Amino acid sequence: MPDAASSSHPLPITGDQRLVKAINRTALLRLLRTGAGLSRADLAERSGLTRSTVSLITKELIKEGWVAEDDVLVTRALGRRPTPLRLDGSRLTLIGAELTPDTLRVVSTTIHGEVLQVNQATLRQADPDGACHQLIEMVTELVRRNIDQGQQVLGIGVGLPGAVETSSGVLLFAPNIGWRRVAVGARLRAELVSVGLGQVPVYCQNEADLAAIGETEFGQHPVDDPLVYISCGLGLGSGIVLGDTLFTGATGAGGEIGHTTLHIDGRPCSCGRLGCAEAYVGLHAIAQATGCLKDDGVDRAALNRRITAREPLVRAAFEAAGQSLGVLLQNVWTTFDPRAIVIGGEVVALGGQPFVDAALSVLETYAAQAGVAAPTVRLARFTELATAVGGAAYALYSLMRPYQALQQQI
Amino acid sequence: MPDAASSSHPLPITGDQRLVKAINRTALLRLLRTGAGLSRADLAERSGLTRSTVSLITKELIKEGWVAEDDVLVTRALGRRPTPLRLDGSRLTLIGAELTPDTLRVVSTTIHGEVLQVNQATLRQADPDGACHQLIEMVTELVRRNIDQGQQVLGIGVGLPGAVETSSGVLLFAPNIGWRRVAVGARLRAELVSVGLGQVPVYCQNEADLAAIGETEFGQHPVDDPLVYISCGLGLGSGIVLGDTLFTGATGAGGEIGHTTLHIDGRPCSCGRLGCAEAYVGLHAIAQATGCLKDDGVDRAALNRRITAREPLVRAAFEAAGQSLGVLLQNVWTTFDPRAIVIGGEVVALGGQPFVDAALSVLETYAAQAGVAAPTVRLARFTELATAVGGAAYALYSLMRPYQALQQQI
Repeated sequence: MPDAASSSHPLPITGDQRLVKAINRTALLRLLRTGAGLSRADLAERSGLTRSTVSLITKELIKEGWVAEDDVLVTRALGRRPTPLRLDGSRLTLIGAELTPDTLRVVSTTIHGEVLQVNQATLRQADPDGACHQLIEMVTELVRRNIDQGQQVLGIGVGLPGAVETSSGVLLFAPNIGWRRVAVGARLRAELVSVGLGQVPVYCQNEADLAAIGETEFGQHPVDDPLVYISCGLGLGSGIVLGDTLFTGATGAGGEIGHTTLHIDGRPCSCGRLGCAEAYVGLHAIAQATGCLKDDGVDRAALNRRITAREPLVRAAFEAAGQSLGVLLQNVWTTFDPRAIVIGGEVVALGGQPFVDAALSVLETYAAQAGVAAPTVRLARFTELATAVGGAAYALYSLMRPYQALQQQI
Repeated sequence: MPDAASSSHPLPITGDQRLVKAINRTALLRLLRTGAGLSRADLAERSGLTRSTVSLITKELIKEGWVAEDDVLVTRALGRRPTPLRLDGSRLTLIGAELTPDTLRVVSTTIHGEVLQVNQATLRQADPDGACHQLIEMVTELVRRNIDQGQQVLGIGVGLPGAVETSSGVLLFAPNIGWRRVAVGARLRAELVSVGLGQVPVYCQNEADLAAIGETEFGQHPVDDPLVYISCGLGLGSGIVLGDTLFTGATGAGGEIGHTTLHIDGRPCSCGRLGCAEAYVGLHAIAQATGCLKDDGVDRAALNRRITAREPLVRAAFEAAGQSLGVLLQNVWTTFDPRAIVIGGEVVALGGQPFVDAALSVLETYAAQAGVAAPTVRLARFTELATAVGGAAYALYSLMRPYQALQQQI
């Protein structure tokens, strides 16, 4: 590949025929995604491609199972009616997975984001080797099951609780479990190769990034872009989609909004700084405020009991965390001017409406002070499966942007 | 244009021949920008385009004055040596302008960012009509002068002190001067047409956005990307370049980091909210802290006198503002993971090293607490001309991304 394409030039140089084909193919898939029922002639008109190019690509896509021909509607008009096409995907499956500090989730979905199978398990061992082993076991089992059922598995997306080197699938650092440089992607790939499933591509990414891609790739059209997904768990992270692209910063650490300063010289944060948003919104802070923090971490059983018992102290802790989230929402709003902010994660699930209402109320106060309408904030579409389903979405996202992969091959 | 190209599909569909030509042309210009001395054969190899396509485009670019042939170096080797090409631009000029609440600056530059002429004036009248009139007068005069000198004026970029609707060139709202919906771009275009200069395109954008583009478009290669430019003036804004593209958010209000919350329930801000960063870092806050705020705004003469007299109170005010900027730098760093943060604007010019050092010291404290290296922070390359030169850069930016303009023509 020419180096101009990879450095300052984000656009493909159209002299590269492999790239041209990948772009044209993706363009037709995207047109069909937003407008089912288009004929080959419609696709040619909308894409600007010649009819013969459209016919060739369509033939390939039908053969691969991406596209199906619908029945022609019989009308009274004379002449042959054009055949409507649609994205099919009944033979195509995506796999998504999430590795958290204590849980594994693996899902399969259609290319439209319909969840087909969910498999969830507690981590048997919390060390990198044990966790990777269990993750690989669960993913491989689900891939195998789909293939046995006659499905083609297009790709696997894995969400990890920290910064990830996308190209290699290495989890660089997971602050909440203390892991450093764990080659999750390479291990999964090696296992797939060894059991004869090496043709299935693997993509690894940070958990909040995947959840964001789940919202855009499996969301309604037109897609909300810019979109910021705020993941409120043990840590506090975000996934940011800008201009149809996942934004990850210069080194993969972009979107670490949990470590923006909410209170100057405030509470100590797990990162070593003082006053980070994570120290006010994260589950750790709530566990601490409610006496549910043990030496080895959050006592979820105790916290759940106290939530169920509707203890005022617990409600107050979630409301305080929600108010802090509200300030962060204001900051995300003014910084990104997004079409949508999405919030998800364990804290949202546990804190429920009091937590969310407290956040929205603070955001609305800021908006009222400035005399403008507050931005759209919604809850994660796939709730506790946001990252796992986002993994499936991320595999599709990667397949629908083959030019990026080609550009990375230098 | 097909609608898929404008909505969720940021990539051109290569069936559009006009677009293909624009992309190929730009690709060659970009290759020449990063590597002078390349021959047609080198360009063909690096772009993947055929030699005949490269020859055709090169011929056109030479005719238009973008590219020049260098002398062939005579070597002892046999055979005809390939002719080295370079971006020329000796016949090509860019015009940039900045309209501030009290000053007008107009510059001309080469396509390499060398500043050729600077014209600065105090606003005679602060109302929209008077200011636009004076701006148009100064810009038209400079365009005319360049044309009289045999130059071709490629485009004009105008920086405005507020949110701008890019497509129409309308200044939507300038909080510091209270202007709303001023059609600066249309007025300038109408005047250019009326004096026979209608062929020169006009581009309007927010002042901090232009300064950011000045850093990337006229900067060294490889370009720092992501780059965040923080403009510290009466207000506090930012320009953000991500993935070779100016990021402006869903409605053009992206990057308004001056209205992120620095102190919850803190000082009242001009926007109506409490505790915004602008209320701590902006010139207004410094003028207030030093008793240099009059009914009609900042008393710059008094402030300058007190700076020259090295009054400790004034130094303390700039240091306090710098410390607040340091917190904002920390937030920008963790949010964007940029390759470079650039700071500029009147507060940097007036506050000098004590202001900058205070900011960097706070940022370094955060970095040390987290055990990581602080990001690169540098001062604006074009100092007080950052926005005006950025205007010239923005005209070039727009010309080098013709596919975006084509996609916007729907």
